[in-house]
Amino acid sequence: MVNNILDTVKVKKPLIHHITNMVTINDCANVTLAVGGLPVMAHAIEEVEEMVSNSQALVLNIGTLTLEQVKAMIKAGKKANSLNIPVIFDPVGAGATKIRTDASKKILDEVQISVIKGNKAEIGILTGSGGKIRGVEAESNDENIESYKNFAKEYHCIVAASGVTDIVSDGNTVYKVDNGHSMLGTISGTGCMLTSIIANFCAVESNHLQATVSAMVAFGLAGELAASRSEVKGPASFKEAFFDEIYNLTDEKLSRGIKVRGEVN
Amino acid sequence: MVNNILDTVKVKKPLIHHITNMVTINDCANVTLAVGGLPVMAHAIEEVEEMVSNSQALVLNIGTLTLEQVKAMIKAGKKANSLNIPVIFDPVGAGATKIRTDASKKILDEVQISVIKGNKAEIGILTGSGGKIRGVEAESNDENIESYKNFAKEYHCIVAASGVTDIVSDGNTVYKVDNGHSMLGTISGTGCMLTSIIANFCAVESNHLQATVSAMVAFGLAGELAASRSEVKGPASFKEAFFDEIYNLTDEKLSRGIKVRGEVN
Amino acid sequence: MVNNILDTVKVKKPLIHHITNMVTINDCANVTLAVGGLPVMAHAIEEVEEMVSNSQALVLNIGTLTLEQVKAMIKAGKKANSLNIPVIFDPVGAGATKIRTDASKKILDEVQISVIKGNKAEIGILTGSGGKIRGVEAESNDENIESYKNFAKEYHCIVAASGVTDIVSDGNTVYKVDNGHSMLGTISGTGCMLTSIIANFCAVESNHLQATVSAMVAFGLAGELAASRSEVKGPASFKEAFFDEIYNLTDEKLSRGIKVRGEVN
Repeated sequence: MVNNILDTVKVKKPLIHHITNMVTINDCANVTLAVGGLPVMAHAIEEVEEMVSNSQALVLNIGTLTLEQVKAMIKAGKKANSLNIPVIFDPVGAGATKIRTDASKKILDEVQISVIKGNKAEIGILTGSGGKIRGVEAESNDENIESYKNFAKEYHCIVAASGVTDIVSDGNTVYKVDNGHSMLGTISGTGCMLTSIIANFCAVESNHLQATVSAMVAFGLAGELAASRSEVKGPASFKEAFFDEIYNLTDEKLSRGIKVRGEVN
Repeated sequence: MVNNILDTVKVKKPLIHHITNMVTINDCANVTLAVGGLPVMAHAIEEVEEMVSNSQALVLNIGTLTLEQVKAMIKAGKKANSLNIPVIFDPVGAGATKIRTDASKKILDEVQISVIKGNKAEIGILTGSGGKIRGVEAESNDENIESYKNFAKEYHCIVAASGVTDIVSDGNTVYKVDNGHSMLGTISGTGCMLTSIIANFCAVESNHLQATVSAMVAFGLAGELAASRSEVKGPASFKEAFFDEIYNLTDEKLSRGIKVRGEVN
Repeated sequence: MVNNILDTVKVKKPLIHHITNMVTINDCANVTLAVGGLPVMAHAIEEVEEMVSNSQALVLNIGTLTLEQVKAMIKAGKKANSLNIPVIFDPVGAGATKIRTDASKKILDEVQISVIKGNKAEIGILTGSGGKIRGVEAESNDENIESYKNFAKEYHCIVAASGVTDIVSDGNTVYKVDNGHSMLGTISGTGCMLTSIIANFCAVESNHLQATVSAMVAFGLAGELAASRSEVKGPASFKEAFFDEIYNLTDEKLSRGIKVRGEVN
């Protein structure tokens, strides 16, 4: 895990350009602020190149995609590539409809992604190992680490598959992250928020494998800490506690709370 | 009221496809999760047929409509009809502008709606009994049960008019639901959230009259329970408590808290 | 400051038509309800004239602008002008991209704005005194009161520049508002919410200079009151407390808590 990652985000305050869905756009802005970065949401095709040029990471999230929006994503992604700005891709609902799967493949083909983060159905469908999705939720936690590794090698990116145990790989090393809590499944947008945190961490740390693992630990640990609070009585009080815990995370808490199994293959 | 409706939703986890407004889209996703269903929000015209085909109910909500979005609603609605998937329609702001009234009529004409749910101004305007709307809020609680019944018969749907007392009718039977709390009027999106809960209940219960009444009881009762909590000090703490109470509702609480007057005519 | 402004809003319940961004649209709706007004969000170009005609103020906020949306803003703004309905403009991200700067100038040229409210970078960039913006956040709190005054005179509007100390001027009188709290910077959308409160106040008070100062006091004071609460442990619990404090504000609290320095030049 990356040392002092949270301190670094808080000091550098990376600007994270999101082209994202309208369901969780407010949560992604707030989680970016809570973790120490600055969010900006901009999707007009006429401005995405200029906006991303001043940013330190780009989030592409297809949760409520339109074909027009995908064009803006690709334009922004190519610009980010030309400036060595990391691109974090969240293929929300890939496999649920043809245009989501096609858009995901098109983005992966035309933009050099730094990290692809999805649930195990989305990642399974895109990596070719299969998976079942209902709407935007994985039906089960099946994973296929070999196909993740092959995909990571082919696309020169980090593959991050979230689930009860998260899997992260760069094609060689594989990490399993056990941080997390079942209450995270009771609120909308946790996957999107995790993607935003990954973007904040990759914006300040060039080792994207380590940055992604660290982000997943931070996200899961905040969920654990929130769930343990006495005032949490359901999903909404949990969500409030979760944001507060993200804000109050420290690198010291991270190193105490980390639950990661590394397997170098 | 439907027995074991909440248990059934939690077991079946219906997928509820929403084509909805951008103001309350996050609330509708979260209330669907809280009540036990799975939300998916998708509005691109290229994917709505495919998405609704895998869903158990479709919500059409015109709160921030565009003409393009209405086309997607009708396309999705017709597909839902062909697959016997219930369509729940919320004509937000009907009467406030011509395009909202026209869109509502077009949807009613082209799609077989299972339930139309609006405030008493929206429902009054569409059923022809009249009503005054300011923006998206009813100016008064005037109701016209005969016109609701005629409309329900003509369109073969359930008419649900929300207000201090909610009125629900299939054209023959009329129910009056007295559950609810004035604090619900202090937050945005309660009407939209109620529509989502109706969709969750109709997704698992083919008696849509009973499902709609049950949803209105559940919604209103959660409001009552939330308002009675000592930590509620205003609309935001009320909203948090409301979501938590929706999550913690049980069929036993529903049958204890129900305030429904039935009138079979 | 305006006497009884909160009471007046609560009694008159002004309808505030927003054409705004998708990040904070829900917050703007809720803050309008909390302060006593009625929100309506409508952006379809076919309905904005009709919607604004029944409103008491119009908010134009370019936080996630598209060129199409800017057209709707100008159409609505011109209609508002013809009916003497105040237009409150929030040039979110002006200076960050060319289309945001251009759209801001176009709106200022084609619509008679009552109040322009931005952070000190946005206002500095548009008034010509300069400023540095990162995404949608000002990089520093530099201010140039002379350029604000000149701009207010040229455009016959109130200029409101928010920061640690807010500056408000009509071109002659200058007010400095010291209410506020650093926790407001930890959540997304506070600038947008402040704009909505200004709109609510201008909707019921024709002295827009006084209405704007009063709104900034109300906004900042609610932040101070929220931050002092023992249950606030981070940005999310602060946000909840903030909304509750807005709802619970009274004119008496305002006159006790006001921190304004007036300088008539």
